[in-house]
Amino acid sequence: MIYAGIDIGGTTIKSGLMDGDSGKLLADMSCPFPHARGVTGTAEDIRRSVDSLCAEIGIPAASLGGIGVCVPGSISPDMSMVLDAYNLGFHNAPLKAEVEKLFPDQTVTLGNDADIAAMAELNNGVFTGHKTAILLTLGTGLGGGIILNGRIFRGGNGNGVEPGHFVVDMHGDLVCTCGSRGCAETLCAATWLVNQGRELVRRNPDGLLARYAEGDPDKVNARMVIDCAREKDPDAEKVFDTYLESLSTVIASLIALFDPEVIGIGGGVSGAGEFLLAPLRQRVKEKNFFKKEYEIVRAEHGNTAGMIGAATLAKVGY
Amino acid sequence: MIYAGIDIGGTTIKSGLMDGDSGKLLADMSCPFPHARGVTGTAEDIRRSVDSLCAEIGIPAASLGGIGVCVPGSISPDMSMVLDAYNLGFHNAPLKAEVEKLFPDQTVTLGNDADIAAMAELNNGVFTGHKTAILLTLGTGLGGGIILNGRIFRGGNGNGVEPGHFVVDMHGDLVCTCGSRGCAETLCAATWLVNQGRELVRRNPDGLLARYAEGDPDKVNARMVIDCAREKDPDAEKVFDTYLESLSTVIASLIALFDPEVIGIGGGVSGAGEFLLAPLRQRVKEKNFFKKEYEIVRAEHGNTAGMIGAATLAKVGY
Repeated sequence: MIYAGIDIGGTTIKSGLMDGDSGKLLADMSCPFPHARGVTGTAEDIRRSVDSLCAEIGIPAASLGGIGVCVPGSISPDMSMVLDAYNLGFHNAPLKAEVEKLFPDQTVTLGNDADIAAMAELNNGVFTGHKTAILLTLGTGLGGGIILNGRIFRGGNGNGVEPGHFVVDMHGDLVCTCGSRGCAETLCAATWLVNQGRELVRRNPDGLLARYAEGDPDKVNARMVIDCAREKDPDAEKVFDTYLESLSTVIASLIALFDPEVIGIGGGVSGAGEFLLAPLRQRVKEKNFFKKEYEIVRAEHGNTAGMIGAATLAKVGY
Repeated sequence: MIYAGIDIGGTTIKSGLMDGDSGKLLADMSCPFPHARGVTGTAEDIRRSVDSLCAEIGIPAASLGGIGVCVPGSISPDMSMVLDAYNLGFHNAPLKAEVEKLFPDQTVTLGNDADIAAMAELNNGVFTGHKTAILLTLGTGLGGGIILNGRIFRGGNGNGVEPGHFVVDMHGDLVCTCGSRGCAETLCAATWLVNQGRELVRRNPDGLLARYAEGDPDKVNARMVIDCAREKDPDAEKVFDTYLESLSTVIASLIALFDPEVIGIGGGVSGAGEFLLAPLRQRVKEKNFFKKEYEIVRAEHGNTAGMIGAATLAKVGY
């Protein structure tokens, strides 16, 4: 059976068809996210994309096993509405019904992007075979998906959970977009590295990072900061060390509460690979309550996590 | 059916017989914890206590529906061994087998005290009817039990979880007994209030709290600090305000991760009742990611939580 997985983001809609047996994408494409045309326009663009992909691999859309759709936002407990997806401008949007209107033969399943990324890892990735796992996606924000008993944990009230928004530094300087001081996100999102890097370029315009960024603080990205640390630039090493300290504290805290079998790291920062993961494992081992070594691995699915996870959602449900 | 619930602590063993239908204790007693006689002596004292209680209510011990035993420590994933209970001096102790040896007709079930207190609330208390709940026991330490899907959550590896040991103040001054800086326990256990109160007595020997404690910092307890705040002593009010700030941050963080239906507060500090709970609810509402008002209630079972929870464990299992 073939399943469609749709990953809606603030700039593009990515659509893919996944083979249910292998968990591999057979075809995929993307189109711009239609900000001006709202939920209805989004449903229309999904229909058009799925039709193109089905034509490409030579199957009728009616033969699909289901359609999964993931959004960067909160989903109602009954999984029919997008409650709030700020980047999309969706609020109480009946996305399931709108897409189903255009696919009368299909069931459409909605999911939150962080949950969906964890689902992709669960069904065909680094969480496969595990019952308890936590995925932390280190990008602009800190997203996360929690797997308990082999299923996505959506919190006690079905509103999803927010692993980026527990507080680790309540007396710190950084106030989160959610209004709280010292959320995990303020210290562990890629954004923290970028902000520290910008500061570094301003403070040391002749330094290595300033050369990478051509002297322009606005050109700094997290990758550059990590690469400078790799090259043993002392300033960048210090920034990276502080980042590791925060991230290992966050993970040790999650271990106290969940004691997961495995922890996956995704998002842009995970591109640092073992340069990040090896010292992270060591610090987490020292810090966690059980003083145990935990499996901390790079998430397998990068840009395709949303499509694969959404198609998996269509296949297995929540 | 009648169940025995045994609550082993560092100073006493409390034993009770609970009616399975009503969830009420029919008889209970306590005896000193036999430090010198170890696991075998503990099992012997449990047998003697249960025999006395059975004689008291006129039933044979063989008619019991089961025996639950709770300890302040970690239990092996297969629930047969006490891995570490520092206050008892038990390490890798085969407590289940030792007690079963003396009760050949009975099944003995072991549990961790924090889990067991949550179980008491779940089956006959403030968590009854809820599927997701968190109990925080604010005493010498910060213990906690997490209920997910109507059952005790013992972590991904079956080792139990440690809600007192996630970090909320990673750059703070207080180092936890577990070795980490700024664990929830360092800021929210009754011990924090006691330490602040002692400091206050030293700093202001003519103040209200000093009078309560007869000028002796060692006589300060958490209750006195709270009572002085109730009486609007400015120093004590400031301490209590800081405590509320920490506790509400801890609860808001747990909400980001679990979004529970209800939060129970137990332990000595919960004796403050609405003087604690009313402002706590308000601050948690302001701080939590969902900006929702949560049900935060005082745990129903006080000193009997261990016996009732352990007997409930014998009845329903984990």
